[in-house]
Amino acid sequence: MTLPRPQPSSQRDALRAAYDAVRTHSLALAEPLSAEDQCVQSMPDASPTKWHLAHTTWFFETLVLREHDPAYALFDPHFPYLFNSYYEALGPRHARPERGMLTRPSQDQVLAYRRHVDDAMGRLIGAARADVLAALAPMLELGLHHEQQHQELLLTDILHAFSRNPLLPAYRATGPAHAAKATQAPAAPPRWLRHPGGMVEVGHPADSADFAFDNERPRHAVYVHPYEIASRLVTCGEYARFIEDGGYERPEFWLSDGWATVRAQEWRAPAYWLMDGDTRLRARGLEGTHVFGLDGLQALNPDAPVAQLSLYEAAAYAAWAGARLPTEFEWEVAAGLPGFTQASRHLWQWTRSSYDPYPGFRPLNGAAAEYNGKFMVGQLVLRGGSIATPEGHTRPTYRNFFPPAARWQFSGLRLARDAV
Amino acid sequence: MTLPRPQPSSQRDALRAAYDAVRTHSLALAEPLSAEDQCVQSMPDASPTKWHLAHTTWFFETLVLREHDPAYALFDPHFPYLFNSYYEALGPRHARPERGMLTRPSQDQVLAYRRHVDDAMGRLIGAARADVLAALAPMLELGLHHEQQHQELLLTDILHAFSRNPLLPAYRATGPAHAAKATQAPAAPPRWLRHPGGMVEVGHPADSADFAFDNERPRHAVYVHPYEIASRLVTCGEYARFIEDGGYERPEFWLSDGWATVRAQEWRAPAYWLMDGDTRLRARGLEGTHVFGLDGLQALNPDAPVAQLSLYEAAAYAAWAGARLPTEFEWEVAAGLPGFTQASRHLWQWTRSSYDPYPGFRPLNGAAAEYNGKFMVGQLVLRGGSIATPEGHTRPTYRNFFPPAARWQFSGLRLARDAV
Amino acid sequence: MTLPRPQPSSQRDALRAAYDAVRTHSLALAEPLSAEDQCVQSMPDASPTKWHLAHTTWFFETLVLREHDPAYALFDPHFPYLFNSYYEALGPRHARPERGMLTRPSQDQVLAYRRHVDDAMGRLIGAARADVLAALAPMLELGLHHEQQHQELLLTDILHAFSRNPLLPAYRATGPAHAAKATQAPAAPPRWLRHPGGMVEVGHPADSADFAFDNERPRHAVYVHPYEIASRLVTCGEYARFIEDGGYERPEFWLSDGWATVRAQEWRAPAYWLMDGDTRLRARGLEGTHVFGLDGLQALNPDAPVAQLSLYEAAAYAAWAGARLPTEFEWEVAAGLPGFTQASRHLWQWTRSSYDPYPGFRPLNGAAAEYNGKFMVGQLVLRGGSIATPEGHTRPTYRNFFPPAARWQFSGLRLARDAV
Amino acid sequence: MTLPRPQPSSQRDALRAAYDAVRTHSLALAEPLSAEDQCVQSMPDASPTKWHLAHTTWFFETLVLREHDPAYALFDPHFPYLFNSYYEALGPRHARPERGMLTRPSQDQVLAYRRHVDDAMGRLIGAARADVLAALAPMLELGLHHEQQHQELLLTDILHAFSRNPLLPAYRATGPAHAAKATQAPAAPPRWLRHPGGMVEVGHPADSADFAFDNERPRHAVYVHPYEIASRLVTCGEYARFIEDGGYERPEFWLSDGWATVRAQEWRAPAYWLMDGDTRLRARGLEGTHVFGLDGLQALNPDAPVAQLSLYEAAAYAAWAGARLPTEFEWEVAAGLPGFTQASRHLWQWTRSSYDPYPGFRPLNGAAAEYNGKFMVGQLVLRGGSIATPEGHTRPTYRNFFPPAARWQFSGLRLARDAV
Repeated sequence: MTLPRPQPSSQRDALRAAYDAVRTHSLALAEPLSAEDQCVQSMPDASPTKWHLAHTTWFFETLVLREHDPAYALFDPHFPYLFNSYYEALGPRHARPERGMLTRPSQDQVLAYRRHVDDAMGRLIGAARADVLAALAPMLELGLHHEQQHQELLLTDILHAFSRNPLLPAYRATGPAHAAKATQAPAAPPRWLRHPGGMVEVGHPADSADFAFDNERPRHAVYVHPYEIASRLVTCGEYARFIEDGGYERPEFWLSDGWATVRAQEWRAPAYWLMDGDTRLRARGLEGTHVFGLDGLQALNPDAPVAQLSLYEAAAYAAWAGARLPTEFEWEVAAGLPGFTQASRHLWQWTRSSYDPYPGFRPLNGAAAEYNGKFMVGQLVLRGGSIATPEGHTRPTYRNFFPPAARWQFSGLRLARDAV
Repeated sequence: MTLPRPQPSSQRDALRAAYDAVRTHSLALAEPLSAEDQCVQSMPDASPTKWHLAHTTWFFETLVLREHDPAYALFDPHFPYLFNSYYEALGPRHARPERGMLTRPSQDQVLAYRRHVDDAMGRLIGAARADVLAALAPMLELGLHHEQQHQELLLTDILHAFSRNPLLPAYRATGPAHAAKATQAPAAPPRWLRHPGGMVEVGHPADSADFAFDNERPRHAVYVHPYEIASRLVTCGEYARFIEDGGYERPEFWLSDGWATVRAQEWRAPAYWLMDGDTRLRARGLEGTHVFGLDGLQALNPDAPVAQLSLYEAAAYAAWAGARLPTEFEWEVAAGLPGFTQASRHLWQWTRSSYDPYPGFRPLNGAAAEYNGKFMVGQLVLRGGSIATPEGHTRPTYRNFFPPAARWQFSGLRLARDAV
Repeated sequence: MTLPRPQPSSQRDALRAAYDAVRTHSLALAEPLSAEDQCVQSMPDASPTKWHLAHTTWFFETLVLREHDPAYALFDPHFPYLFNSYYEALGPRHARPERGMLTRPSQDQVLAYRRHVDDAMGRLIGAARADVLAALAPMLELGLHHEQQHQELLLTDILHAFSRNPLLPAYRATGPAHAAKATQAPAAPPRWLRHPGGMVEVGHPADSADFAFDNERPRHAVYVHPYEIASRLVTCGEYARFIEDGGYERPEFWLSDGWATVRAQEWRAPAYWLMDGDTRLRARGLEGTHVFGLDGLQALNPDAPVAQLSLYEAAAYAAWAGARLPTEFEWEVAAGLPGFTQASRHLWQWTRSSYDPYPGFRPLNGAAAEYNGKFMVGQLVLRGGSIATPEGHTRPTYRNFFPPAARWQFSGLRLARDAV
Repeated sequence: MTLPRPQPSSQRDALRAAYDAVRTHSLALAEPLSAEDQCVQSMPDASPTKWHLAHTTWFFETLVLREHDPAYALFDPHFPYLFNSYYEALGPRHARPERGMLTRPSQDQVLAYRRHVDDAMGRLIGAARADVLAALAPMLELGLHHEQQHQELLLTDILHAFSRNPLLPAYRATGPAHAAKATQAPAAPPRWLRHPGGMVEVGHPADSADFAFDNERPRHAVYVHPYEIASRLVTCGEYARFIEDGGYERPEFWLSDGWATVRAQEWRAPAYWLMDGDTRLRARGLEGTHVFGLDGLQALNPDAPVAQLSLYEAAAYAAWAGARLPTEFEWEVAAGLPGFTQASRHLWQWTRSSYDPYPGFRPLNGAAAEYNGKFMVGQLVLRGGSIATPEGHTRPTYRNFFPPAARWQFSGLRLARDAV
């Protein structure tokens, strides 16, 4: 859902509604998962579902309740240590690669923790003086967008965990809605959308009342050269032709670090593809390339956008296709062009832009200063949004970011090229 | 319990009773653990409880039912892949470091798997022709001893997992029985028990009807020099003095590989000791050295035997104490001496003997050939048995073995020295 | 020296003069080093002196002689395999981390290789038809700039090797020239130079006859916000105050990856600083912080620019100082401002800009396409030039690049800040 | 040569002669190597030639001259730090994996160091009072045997370094002597030599005046079961049949750790074999399997003993051949049997015995206590001696030892089996 933007006249109600909606959605996402599923950590970069549920709760406890509610009593004195993610200013914390060790607290205790904090938040929102409410509203709003980010990560991470399980379990059954979505996928060739270039404004406007992260600010001018951008994402069928053409054996398409990774990790296809002849397919009597996803193992749909791609693979495909990735500014400006489809709700889209601070970037105050700024090195920007992104969470100025080798995100690509 | 040794006259009943007793005990050990606890794998060398429960079941399914019961139907065609441990002859298998990924099959499904196999085993034992019964009995018996080994590992591995959890949960509450056991611990100085040396026989006798593993055979003569061996295990209080005397900072006591490990891993005390001032103690308002165990965090009991020790630490302590570790043969021969206490049911006891094959060693036939022989390199022998060892499982000729850096076992030490 | 830019009227002579000058300078740099010194590789990212001497020769052999001189005979058929660096299009090659294994070919053989190629190049330059000369000139020129880059790396890499030698040998003796240079260092506080911002042009002009790498092109417009930039580099004395203020223990100044590196690598000061009390200083009876450099071990000169800094350290210092690093475009534009000192010939200067392709970037044709483009990910841009850079090699548009953790380069920092 | 065993009547002369002979031989071994060759370290377990030359010198300086010659002046105060190998009691030292960084001191300086120490040793041997001479003689003798061990390592290590060089240089040219030796190799099938078993004495006799290391003592009784041992070593031709029969793809022959190593390291043949079709062979126009050795690359000689084998490979071959490796005691006792050929001067021979202390083992006093004892874990015993072993250095009781994965030694195997 789109988070209702609180208005002065009804801020209290709007905050409560938004809080309830976001918090409920997290539980709904965890619902298909057993306590065992919710506890596993499949790699250092992924977190257990249970940890996501607790960490997002810790955020409200630490940055709203403990700051603004003198009567608030900690649910458990160990939890701040267990569920702080990376905020150095907020004290020591459990090591990230060890999150899967937390079989205790149990799933039940984490749910009780959520109820404890939700109750306190409800009381605070309902009873706070207007000036207190005004003071806490920005952090509460940040907490909701924060929780939405973890909602996507929850799906991303459990999909990774399931991909490591030889049973290849499905997060959810394939239903009519999903089948419908699949048929929405474009079968027609992409069109090239032209942008004339020139000075453009990018980033979130200072005078906007809508929420945006600090990394989207300040809005500023950049000069863009004339370019063309594809009307849709690259599909699995198109990507399969890259593989057939020796894409993973031809260094000329790859960035140097990418090629080194291909060799060291023995990449031969996207991470969740099972190529024809894979022992896991033969054990199930299946033929042809299959793709593992939230719906489990499915025959490759040539019209679906290719997903769980690293930047290295995206850039290599683009080079093979005689094109390139767009910059993040080209993407942002093009998002408003007629014919630009799949702008969000399909896949995050790698750009050729490193995740650098905008000119005049100012991190948030206090502990939230660590939210974005300290990660601005060694990563690249993705734009758009994915099927795992909560509805309404993103916007054209939104900057997602991951290291170039990351291939467990809902990430794909859209081609661009210089205009002649 | 001691496994009832089947007699010809009542073999069928005895096998059934033994089978039921061992299988029930596994479930009892898992009983205090949640589904989450049973799913976690805290390091590649440790396995989840759920995996232990399933793997021991797979052993009977594969080596008894599929061999001897033509009517047996696999519970699940994926399970042989998931729950084979290391038997190359029995097909491909899930990678050992990935066992913690198995959030599916669920705990419930694994219990159903156990029931499925138990039912089939009950039918087979009850109805098999006498010749079939005679043919399968050795493998069934091996399977029971195998499951007993995993019962100890189940406790060992969950203790390691809990040691990595900042909450330091207890596997079981400390009760009167346990307190009683603690007070049984020897406070008096150890006595040196003297053995005159000479030709001795070691290993399991060929004419014995009792069970023994292939690695205990054949019984053979060795020449032992006169020696003395301590009447009891080294205690925590004694070991604490080694630490106070700079034991972990003085290379002269350590094997070269041991000292390299001390430096690289920053060892300062046994793995499960929390030294005075540890942040985890201070967070709980505790002072003085504590030890983590199945009962959770407890103040160091100076009279309790020091446990979870690596061979490196055991050998370094012995060198500091002006003594040495016994050889496995010295230990075996001494186990019958008057005054030799804590022979089993306390801790496995490191010996100075590498785990080499006995002269004339013959592995078991078939897949069971891989049971012991292929591990005979790079490990050292431990003798005795521990508080985690099922009653009756061990005997003086029993050869346990682990690599010298292993420090998550119920392992301690007993001193020896050359007789003058 | 500045490479003489060949003019049409005297291209042949100019090429020959430039070639001789650059090639001679490489030998002069290697002259203080023994054959043993020239063979060592101190880490995978560093190369032996001998390898630098051979690889730069291979470049001319492969891309000029084999392309343009049908009569050219390979010096040794193994050398293309040994001395290709990273050009996938030019065939397989010796693994980079193994370059230190090449005790053969000997130093003498490598020098003979250089003479063989130099003779052939001399003949080719002298005797080539005008059209051939025109065709090969761009690659020859690229080869000379390439060799100049390796001249800097030669010094950088041998300094790293010497830093790992407990004897801490000096590459060269400290002489009057060097002492004079030291006293040139600024003692006065830096001034803030103001730039009004606006649309600026950056990159190498298309119509320039001067040499530039492909990564400096095309020249293009960017919008720069008003900013201030320091008139000089940060000094060792200033950096020492950052350390004294707990700079390496306070995460709030560091990028997240930087802080993780500080902890994992136990960074406490710049890589080549020996802090007061270091055992290597005490072994020599020295007190106070010292810095290791080409002149060996020297007492810290508080007025000298701080060097061999990673991007992480540079950015942390800037945050501590209430400032930031300039972008590469801010740096380039400011290089022409009055009062902007130490623009080159001191240290490369980290910028806050990731090494991304310019809009409309086109790599060179053929094998040289791999020269720059494939490294455009995961690195940051440095501008300026260092005491190790050959004279005349750089220009304000020059883009050097290294990963953010690199701390063996002649790299320092200059502060910037937003203008209010 | 066999070290002349000093007799009371001529101890001074004998010591001087032995000293001169051993020291001269080290220089002779280094003679074919350039300064570059002598500086390289190809892996942490191998040391540079130059380091071997200096370390053996340091041994005499530290344990003889500094102990027994008050007038001795250190050659260089840094050298004890640089050239101590692993003696914790003798102070801190340069890290082992960093020995290849020592381009300084130069080869010339190391040779001067040797002369400095040799001169001082000559003076001390010539002028010491008889009681001083008697006191230092054991350590001097140990130093000579120590240097002989490093003479073998020097060859072992340079062969490894050359094996990593694509030029595959030969340490020495193949000459008539070598060709003669090759033809001495046995072409006939091995014979099984029978030993009746029983109580035997092993180890070095206490009353012997001959030198032996502490790890060969005390001589003691062991009981040996009847067995047979092969009259000669396994040949390359025999080993090639193991490979052809799928030896490296069949886990049933391998120890568990060995099989894991085969998979992880992708072993397909002995380390220095180049199988038919290897790119390095094709680049030289060679066909058929070749073997790299001190004589460079040679066509596989089916009659030569297979070398540079790990224990894992040796044990796997033995299992494939329906035999086993002998224990170290079986080997020692058999060495005196008629028909037992290739006892030394060909290859070290892996045994199935872990390198454990003998009953009553006492390390040497003082710093030499670290010589052997602290390595007695995780290694296996090799017996015999190799073509790289100095003449007269070994004896049947000699215990060499290496970890089971080591495959850069002059190590092969001889089969054994239980007698029926």
